[in-house]
Amino acid sequence: MADYITYFDGEWVPFSEVKIDPLDRAFLSGDVVFDVARTFNGKSFRLKHHIDRLYRSLKFVRIDPGLTADEMLDISEEVVRRNESLRPEVGDFTITQFVTRGVGSRTRDAGPPTVCVKVAAVGFNSYVSLYETGAHGVITRTRSYSPDSVDPKIKHYSRMNFALADLEAADVDPEAWAILTDTEGNITEGTGYNVFLVTDGVIRTAGSRDLLQGVSRGMVMDLARQMDVPLEQGDLQPYDLYNADEAFFSSTSYCVLPVTRVDKRPVADGKPGPITQQLLAAWSESAGLDIVDQAQRFARG
Amino acid sequence: MADYITYFDGEWVPFSEVKIDPLDRAFLSGDVVFDVARTFNGKSFRLKHHIDRLYRSLKFVRIDPGLTADEMLDISEEVVRRNESLRPEVGDFTITQFVTRGVGSRTRDAGPPTVCVKVAAVGFNSYVSLYETGAHGVITRTRSYSPDSVDPKIKHYSRMNFALADLEAADVDPEAWAILTDTEGNITEGTGYNVFLVTDGVIRTAGSRDLLQGVSRGMVMDLARQMDVPLEQGDLQPYDLYNADEAFFSSTSYCVLPVTRVDKRPVADGKPGPITQQLLAAWSESAGLDIVDQAQRFARG
Amino acid sequence: MADYITYFDGEWVPFSEVKIDPLDRAFLSGDVVFDVARTFNGKSFRLKHHIDRLYRSLKFVRIDPGLTADEMLDISEEVVRRNESLRPEVGDFTITQFVTRGVGSRTRDAGPPTVCVKVAAVGFNSYVSLYETGAHGVITRTRSYSPDSVDPKIKHYSRMNFALADLEAADVDPEAWAILTDTEGNITEGTGYNVFLVTDGVIRTAGSRDLLQGVSRGMVMDLARQMDVPLEQGDLQPYDLYNADEAFFSSTSYCVLPVTRVDKRPVADGKPGPITQQLLAAWSESAGLDIVDQAQRFARG
Amino acid sequence: MADYITYFDGEWVPFSEVKIDPLDRAFLSGDVVFDVARTFNGKSFRLKHHIDRLYRSLKFVRIDPGLTADEMLDISEEVVRRNESLRPEVGDFTITQFVTRGVGSRTRDAGPPTVCVKVAAVGFNSYVSLYETGAHGVITRTRSYSPDSVDPKIKHYSRMNFALADLEAADVDPEAWAILTDTEGNITEGTGYNVFLVTDGVIRTAGSRDLLQGVSRGMVMDLARQMDVPLEQGDLQPYDLYNADEAFFSSTSYCVLPVTRVDKRPVADGKPGPITQQLLAAWSESAGLDIVDQAQRFARG
Amino acid sequence: MADYITYFDGEWVPFSEVKIDPLDRAFLSGDVVFDVARTFNGKSFRLKHHIDRLYRSLKFVRIDPGLTADEMLDISEEVVRRNESLRPEVGDFTITQFVTRGVGSRTRDAGPPTVCVKVAAVGFNSYVSLYETGAHGVITRTRSYSPDSVDPKIKHYSRMNFALADLEAADVDPEAWAILTDTEGNITEGTGYNVFLVTDGVIRTAGSRDLLQGVSRGMVMDLARQMDVPLEQGDLQPYDLYNADEAFFSSTSYCVLPVTRVDKRPVADGKPGPITQQLLAAWSESAGLDIVDQAQRFARG
Amino acid sequence: MADYITYFDGEWVPFSEVKIDPLDRAFLSGDVVFDVARTFNGKSFRLKHHIDRLYRSLKFVRIDPGLTADEMLDISEEVVRRNESLRPEVGDFTITQFVTRGVGSRTRDAGPPTVCVKVAAVGFNSYVSLYETGAHGVITRTRSYSPDSVDPKIKHYSRMNFALADLEAADVDPEAWAILTDTEGNITEGTGYNVFLVTDGVIRTAGSRDLLQGVSRGMVMDLARQMDVPLEQGDLQPYDLYNADEAFFSSTSYCVLPVTRVDKRPVADGKPGPITQQLLAAWSESAGLDIVDQAQRFARG
Repeated sequence: MADYITYFDGEWVPFSEVKIDPLDRAFLSGDVVFDVARTFNGKSFRLKHHIDRLYRSLKFVRIDPGLTADEMLDISEEVVRRNESLRPEVGDFTITQFVTRGVGSRTRDAGPPTVCVKVAAVGFNSYVSLYETGAHGVITRTRSYSPDSVDPKIKHYSRMNFALADLEAADVDPEAWAILTDTEGNITEGTGYNVFLVTDGVIRTAGSRDLLQGVSRGMVMDLARQMDVPLEQGDLQPYDLYNADEAFFSSTSYCVLPVTRVDKRPVADGKPGPITQQLLAAWSESAGLDIVDQAQRFARG
Repeated sequence: MADYITYFDGEWVPFSEVKIDPLDRAFLSGDVVFDVARTFNGKSFRLKHHIDRLYRSLKFVRIDPGLTADEMLDISEEVVRRNESLRPEVGDFTITQFVTRGVGSRTRDAGPPTVCVKVAAVGFNSYVSLYETGAHGVITRTRSYSPDSVDPKIKHYSRMNFALADLEAADVDPEAWAILTDTEGNITEGTGYNVFLVTDGVIRTAGSRDLLQGVSRGMVMDLARQMDVPLEQGDLQPYDLYNADEAFFSSTSYCVLPVTRVDKRPVADGKPGPITQQLLAAWSESAGLDIVDQAQRFARG
Repeated sequence: MADYITYFDGEWVPFSEVKIDPLDRAFLSGDVVFDVARTFNGKSFRLKHHIDRLYRSLKFVRIDPGLTADEMLDISEEVVRRNESLRPEVGDFTITQFVTRGVGSRTRDAGPPTVCVKVAAVGFNSYVSLYETGAHGVITRTRSYSPDSVDPKIKHYSRMNFALADLEAADVDPEAWAILTDTEGNITEGTGYNVFLVTDGVIRTAGSRDLLQGVSRGMVMDLARQMDVPLEQGDLQPYDLYNADEAFFSSTSYCVLPVTRVDKRPVADGKPGPITQQLLAAWSESAGLDIVDQAQRFARG
Repeated sequence: MADYITYFDGEWVPFSEVKIDPLDRAFLSGDVVFDVARTFNGKSFRLKHHIDRLYRSLKFVRIDPGLTADEMLDISEEVVRRNESLRPEVGDFTITQFVTRGVGSRTRDAGPPTVCVKVAAVGFNSYVSLYETGAHGVITRTRSYSPDSVDPKIKHYSRMNFALADLEAADVDPEAWAILTDTEGNITEGTGYNVFLVTDGVIRTAGSRDLLQGVSRGMVMDLARQMDVPLEQGDLQPYDLYNADEAFFSSTSYCVLPVTRVDKRPVADGKPGPITQQLLAAWSESAGLDIVDQAQRFARG
Repeated sequence: MADYITYFDGEWVPFSEVKIDPLDRAFLSGDVVFDVARTFNGKSFRLKHHIDRLYRSLKFVRIDPGLTADEMLDISEEVVRRNESLRPEVGDFTITQFVTRGVGSRTRDAGPPTVCVKVAAVGFNSYVSLYETGAHGVITRTRSYSPDSVDPKIKHYSRMNFALADLEAADVDPEAWAILTDTEGNITEGTGYNVFLVTDGVIRTAGSRDLLQGVSRGMVMDLARQMDVPLEQGDLQPYDLYNADEAFFSSTSYCVLPVTRVDKRPVADGKPGPITQQLLAAWSESAGLDIVDQAQRFARG
Repeated sequence: MADYITYFDGEWVPFSEVKIDPLDRAFLSGDVVFDVARTFNGKSFRLKHHIDRLYRSLKFVRIDPGLTADEMLDISEEVVRRNESLRPEVGDFTITQFVTRGVGSRTRDAGPPTVCVKVAAVGFNSYVSLYETGAHGVITRTRSYSPDSVDPKIKHYSRMNFALADLEAADVDPEAWAILTDTEGNITEGTGYNVFLVTDGVIRTAGSRDLLQGVSRGMVMDLARQMDVPLEQGDLQPYDLYNADEAFFSSTSYCVLPVTRVDKRPVADGKPGPITQQLLAAWSESAGLDIVDQAQRFARG
């Protein structure tokens, strides 16, 4: 793997030199917020949306990164630019910003924060085959955090529950993807992706209570509007997912990924659905490249 | 600060060379378990209890550290031994083991884990004055995780809720210590310490549902038995703490710390209570040194 | 009562010969799903909606009835046809499909399922007088199941909570109808009927979380659209029902039934409201007969 | 299988003639309570405990069986007696009483109840091999009912959640046994068995809130007292089960069954534990036969 | 009714002159705490327990009454003394202390508090007949407050939920007594009385979480110890109450009152139970008068 | 302060003569409902909305005030008229109606109710400076009541939780305003005011589940419609408030009050926002006076 030039605490270093201090609260209590965007043909996509969300996370947890949102955005673009020569080989980049709380024995005294902005190759091969077959979702016993503990709208790294949910899904099927619910049994999100379903021509997804306000989720909403497909937010339960006409995940890297099985039950006829396909096509058009085709070309055996 | 010799992934290195890989799941999702013991006069205290708890955490989260509990214990003692020459200057050590999940894009594929065992000087100066004045507890709106998300009995680093609780307590009083409750309003624990109170001669503490099964908590129970003071576990609410005759925290470093104010209300007459003092004395005797006296001697201005 | 020809496990038998095996999981653990439609003047009404919902229930509980939805629909029409000669005497039929899990000591091994499709006379006399006086609703302490236990959107026979709610309502008034809430105090449904209210010209009903997605409920929505009366779904509490301008139940048999008292408080002036009446009239028109008039003609003393 | 003589609504009939009326509320809403005892060498065991619990269930759901508890006990003994000649072939009997609500369109009007008392061969072959290997428990996402819906202390047949939990456990391992939790994440019970664990020489089991008050559970308590092994009731979570020294189920038929894996984690060394074995031995002594040996002799290939 | 001399804000006035300022927060937000003791033959009973609980309530809500607990106790005794001449006519007195927050547009600015200590005739006739027949309890849909809203251990006057529960119980039976549960379905307390039951010779009552720590409840515990009857605290549900061998309420005025029906189900044989009677006898002995006899003599037609 | 003529139980008296009977259930259990309107330039504003809500509260709690809603409205206008001569000096009046349950030892027997209608000077000086600086909101640990205990849509005086929340907010900042959440962590309301925020040009506020249906809240909705600003109701959490572009409270007296800090985090740039200002301007126009200007003119030092 290439060793990309990375912004780390005001310096430009190869990523292999980025290391986390074991005394940073980021390590000691998962006290770090982050965001992830990606490029299409080397151009960042909705980067400002991601930076804005990062700053909402920062405000919630009261870390001051010492940079304005505009500066963070400029640095992010700069990271992409500095690594552009290495980009064609891997297709496209993810762009990650993270900001740690810094070193300190108490949260309230910790600092200064560590800021890192980095790129990496999009991980096409972890999902490329699923554009055709669809993913298998497993709804886990492990629950999303209550907003009374940590609001799931913050994008942070204190995600032991995601780790446990991932292992639990693998117990049912080694290739299954975890889907979490809140403590009332409503579907919230996956371990880094939002969950959608289609019923009677309407796209449906969970409301904003217990889940990350995905930028890709927002893109799906925009495309739905553009495609004139109604989209509703609200409480959804496993029943709705089992009985959907289509289902899909959204995230920064794969954009839209069909889900064709949930808890060992086929979704409809067990094949990716037409609205899912249209969303992928519309997104591809918006991104200026064929998303599935690119994944197939760059996935490494 | 001295640069203590540390066990890190099978090597012996100065602690300054221990760095966390930003691709380790430990950083990316707080997927790391740990434990902390301490020495008294250089001798480890109840180290086996700590190692056993570490292995219970490991089993729950399904990380195999590649070492048996006995090996982990031996390494821990070895770390103490290798740094013994530096110990007299700081009084005593904390001994920390942590085991990360390792690198991987999914939890289920990640590994191998990283194992670290290290010592550090006990942080006497962060609490020494409180043996006399008592700490001020603030019960926070931020809650403990539900066992349905992450069981609070695992000792892990996904503790964004502890970070938020710490900041929230500081909003009320910059020197206050956070006390959390579960989603039913029962007192659980602090951000790294257990909570006790004394009413009518009975020591009371929360049951085992939503909190860490502290080794120091176990020591308090043993001392209470030895002192013939009854101790009860059960659901406690803020009412019980406000109206207690005494209150105290327990943790590895300070052992027992009086709490003399909670939510701006004095506990009884606002002074450390007699049973709290007796516990400290009994613990000192068991440890073979005067715990308060040592803290006063080694606290750095 | 007439002994209607019934489809039972591939045979055509008089209903009196239909018996449930006490070793069928349907009996041993209420492991059976069903649906109920009705005829108007002998013609089935929205039968496909009912069959579709039955198949959603089947999919959720993972029973394969060995028949396609189309076959189930054909059989259902056939049952009506075979009993048509007996229909004029009783006015109209309910059409019930049920599918049991079958015999087996564990759910996972049980089978084959038993499929039954049957008709019965609509039970006009159990509600005919209420079109004029309105029903008395009593909100019970007994709650709907959480979707975490059994999703209330499945139409099944494990309804001990409905039995308890019915008895509890009768404790307040022997003729009262039970209304359930979820564990948060939101109104869900009755023991086989949906609950609606009208406030300021808007029809309001519970969302889809904790209640059966009634086909009649769907019909009310369609009629409201046709009548240009706004209809909103959302969380409703007893307060909303007590203070409504009108209230009514919907179900397959009586279609729409006015509710004029709730928990001993009159709804508005204690008389059936105008929108309730309009819904009944519109439904009658859609059904091709006067619903109330038919009930009065066929109710048996 | 033999066609045992059965008490059914006041008559003595072969079991093959016992059929459930599809209009009985027992079928239409799972409105039926029951209990199951067993014989050892043809003698009923703690039959009075079972009958008493049956009458507590009856009182809760307000069904009057038309028989006193003493009469029900006599009939139960009589059923055993009448089938004694067939008993030696199968080893021993289970004895089941069930009482349905009876026929009626509303719970409050239904009746008279149907009373059935029957015997069946103990199903040795469904568990005989597990005395040696131990069962694999899987903690399911599907939860126990809240006491606000139906108190789990009633022994009834409205158990769709047990059916769903059974299927869910089989998704992880076709031979796994389901273990349920309440909506707070505390372990409650299996789908017809209680759950115990042993930690540091103490037997622990869930309190009485959300689970059946098993008669076998009571027997375990009595044996523990007799064996001088302390036994504690309280809130237990998956953490406790994963990290137990031993675990076992209790139920009428197998009495005590070792559990050696939970959620794919071995319990201790993955073998049945010593206290589990001692309980089985003590129970055997109390029952007057070797429970495991009998199961091995009578299990049918 | 006699116009008893009353302590009111430092003055001695006839009770008819005690009036509450409509601008006092006590009226505007139920911001007032209180306690009630009684006399036996004119001697106050466990008055110190009541005063101590009053001061715990005061501390929780942060009202400083401007009097020490000792002064409050002296005043209370003084009130009894000053009205002694009127006592023989009514048998005995209740002694009530209440402390309001005082006048103010915000809670934080309000004051000074108003302190009132008064006596009244014990209301024998509201319960005298129930010593023989037993009370009828009705478990209401209306719940106790969560400790997250207002801890039920504070004795305060913000009891709209008690008012609603009382009306709801009367809907079932005009003479029924309300029994509340918490939001999990556990029995908490009545609208001013604690609930006990007896099963297999053990007295059982709810734990301390969601209910008033009744002084009479404490007396029952003391008497049980003295009578050598085991007493357990823990989660109880309606099932336990329906199936108890005995049930009773405790409160300051009637001490112990048999409960013989709950939710229209008889408790055991529907008559006051022997342990209930023994408790009454033991209390009478401790009080120095026959409690039931006194009630019968002084109850006014 | 002037001693305004007040309607009290059918009489016209100076307010100083209005006193609450300490035996009225209103005092003993907060069993009293009320409403508050205000005048603009001496004219009542939306008085009918307030009276209607008062009657909804009355119906819920089943108090019959002995007056029709029309009579209550007439009396309210009459109170304003009778005090008009004193109005210019203070600017404007609040108009409060309250209805107590009346005297009685049990809620079910209490009565007759006491009805009071009174005016008071609007308390301009408690908030006038905040139109410019904005208020500081603090989200409290103390929660709104569950609708299962007391529906927060009733406007009643059993508000000990509001008192506790007020003190808790003052612990963080002596001038902070309390904001409550429900037991799920959703923002509900303040201690007498509704909470709004503005995000991306959309006004957002909590739905109707756990909060008072403010008349001012309704006015904000009407003005938003008139201003063509979209307004959405739904679940909001602290995250939404911290990251809003604007925030404000609404209530009868100040109408709309900017909120510029929440939990020590500035809302946007920490200044009152433009939509907040437009709402104030539109309301002023509707009211026929400049709301802020009036407050500044009449606020007393």
